[in-house]
Amino acid sequence: MRKVGIVGIGQSRFGIRSDASLRELSFEAAKASLDDAGIPLDDVQAMVVSVASDELSYALQPSAQVVDYLGFNPKPSFRVEGACASGSMAVRTGWMTVASGLADLVIVVGAEKMTEVSTAAVTDVLGRAGDFMWEYPFGMTFPGYYALIARAHMAKYGTTEEQLSMVAVKNHHYGALNPYAHMRKEISLDKAMSSFTVADPLKLYDCCLISDGAAAIVLASDKLAGSLSKKPVWISGLGLGTDTISLSDRRDITTLDATVEAARQAYDMAGIGPKDIDVAVVHDCFTIAEIAAYEDLGFCAKGEGGKLIEEKRTYIGGDIPVNVDGGLKSKGHPIGATGVAMAAEIAKQLRGEADPGRQVENARIGLSHNVGGNGQHAAVHVFQVD
Amino acid sequence: MRKVGIVGIGQSRFGIRSDASLRELSFEAAKASLDDAGIPLDDVQAMVVSVASDELSYALQPSAQVVDYLGFNPKPSFRVEGACASGSMAVRTGWMTVASGLADLVIVVGAEKMTEVSTAAVTDVLGRAGDFMWEYPFGMTFPGYYALIARAHMAKYGTTEEQLSMVAVKNHHYGALNPYAHMRKEISLDKAMSSFTVADPLKLYDCCLISDGAAAIVLASDKLAGSLSKKPVWISGLGLGTDTISLSDRRDITTLDATVEAARQAYDMAGIGPKDIDVAVVHDCFTIAEIAAYEDLGFCAKGEGGKLIEEKRTYIGGDIPVNVDGGLKSKGHPIGATGVAMAAEIAKQLRGEADPGRQVENARIGLSHNVGGNGQHAAVHVFQVD
Repeated sequence: MRKVGIVGIGQSRFGIRSDASLRELSFEAAKASLDDAGIPLDDVQAMVVSVASDELSYALQPSAQVVDYLGFNPKPSFRVEGACASGSMAVRTGWMTVASGLADLVIVVGAEKMTEVSTAAVTDVLGRAGDFMWEYPFGMTFPGYYALIARAHMAKYGTTEEQLSMVAVKNHHYGALNPYAHMRKEISLDKAMSSFTVADPLKLYDCCLISDGAAAIVLASDKLAGSLSKKPVWISGLGLGTDTISLSDRRDITTLDATVEAARQAYDMAGIGPKDIDVAVVHDCFTIAEIAAYEDLGFCAKGEGGKLIEEKRTYIGGDIPVNVDGGLKSKGHPIGATGVAMAAEIAKQLRGEADPGRQVENARIGLSHNVGGNGQHAAVHVFQVD
Repeated sequence: MRKVGIVGIGQSRFGIRSDASLRELSFEAAKASLDDAGIPLDDVQAMVVSVASDELSYALQPSAQVVDYLGFNPKPSFRVEGACASGSMAVRTGWMTVASGLADLVIVVGAEKMTEVSTAAVTDVLGRAGDFMWEYPFGMTFPGYYALIARAHMAKYGTTEEQLSMVAVKNHHYGALNPYAHMRKEISLDKAMSSFTVADPLKLYDCCLISDGAAAIVLASDKLAGSLSKKPVWISGLGLGTDTISLSDRRDITTLDATVEAARQAYDMAGIGPKDIDVAVVHDCFTIAEIAAYEDLGFCAKGEGGKLIEEKRTYIGGDIPVNVDGGLKSKGHPIGATGVAMAAEIAKQLRGEADPGRQVENARIGLSHNVGGNGQHAAVHVFQVD
């Protein structure tokens, strides 16, 4: 199997980017990743595009907007999609493009433009990442899904609303240190706890942001990686799991089996275990999702995720720093960009280039965890430096 | 580079399938491909799903419907998309999954459900595969795009309306022999020529059908291929090209540069040229598209595509039989399924298993050509048997 490494990373500022269209955001991220890699676009042989929604991009084949605006034609490119995990599907596809021998240098671009329509319209589009036939028509949208998961987790394991809010406090703490984050402000536990209810028990600060943004990475084969300016961050483990479309069909809604399966695959491929991870980004679309991810990824035993955050063991200096870029919670969640931004963040950490106050010292092995829908898809990737 | 072969093929009947949903059509095709390969779904390690439109599938992450209904979870699957070329993106991604070493046995499923909404609504969704910003708002939909291409081709090369109709006559002739085709009836040249105008000079019989349908193939590495029941059909060349999103930005609208580029890549990779192709399926979304494809794929010189059909050189017995399954024109065009169905048809031809009257004798090398939009994407694949 050919080794594949990240040799360039870039992202746009996430946020309400009324200054930029989908194609302009993509350019911003792609340009940054190429500059970081020290190569011109002409040298890149293939592109993979992640845009999650046709409707939010007003297009069938939204990838054509990205290809055209970057001037990448006539070279190969297409779109991959797995709702909020689309970006990780694109990282996987970029990896496969290099590992299969089709190309030696590939750019992966993820982007989403979400703030041009109302929050209600976005909630509606996202809601159809669940079961549009048997759950969505009865009023299930994502805050509702994760509220059910939170309630079940609280009932089964004694997880508390305070513990949920503690995830938000941590992620806003680190997000405030990240210049690319959508919402750069610390919040207090009291502020989180007293924010209004979105879907009981989830409050405003338990929910991630709706953002515009883009991210890009450049991938190279080991053959080329030595000749490029940046030390490669190898993608050493790739896992992808799936689950039933209906939440109501799951054996236990406190666990995302797709995450458990993806983690198993990724750890096996990389030949490591959860104890080896120095830094992780996990899919905190809602605070309960981060707590469940701690458990499903093996960072703690099942049911002990609440305790893990309460004891601050996922802060820098703790057992396993998680979402020290701010996470979806504070950095933002432009859905097509998120998985690519996760890979870029881990590469940044493993290179030792993260911003002051949020760099994990001497990190050698990192992990990203990205969920599509409420676990219909989940991707786990392991990254390592030599 | 690992060799990757098709070891199972299946498709649903194409047509107005009011008896089956997207997920049921997918099952129909997937089941047929597994039966053909002689393996249970349990043995398959990964899936790639091609569904072109969120809107027509009422979903974000339409792949979850397919995974769930087939009971494929928790194994890896995601969706790829490139409008009407989505199916070929899925074949490419399936090939990469095996060639990269991530899996040895992969199923590729393409499907689309298009007849539940009005023809006007479908035309609108498809129209946004073009430039939604600078062309679509001014009334450009696909019959219009290809009418412009036809007019330019007629003006530059003297191509005639009769020659366009002759493509329809050929494809209906072969489609009538294909039990999976949407419209199984021969048409006369007179009937085609006297059908009503859709977008001048294109008439009703110059336009492909709007269909429901699904197709699936099973791919295996050379390591496994020998132990399976069917003789593998190797995918020996993969090409993927892109072009500007706006037709108005192209250097010459009588040529799809994405096709020319994709063909170059595929021929190079396979180490062959157009003269070596024994049988081809090309993207005849409109009859002019088939004529341009003859030229852009190198089956004849530029401008001589009209003559090629007029002299019946793309019938069986001619230089290069094209679309002897009926093509999009008569077999139908459920957009997410088309590229996968093309691969299945070529495999059927190379195995010598096509229906009486439409089998190309002793075919050893085949080609598929699949276009997304009006050439924003084009994929060309070469297939060979030992």
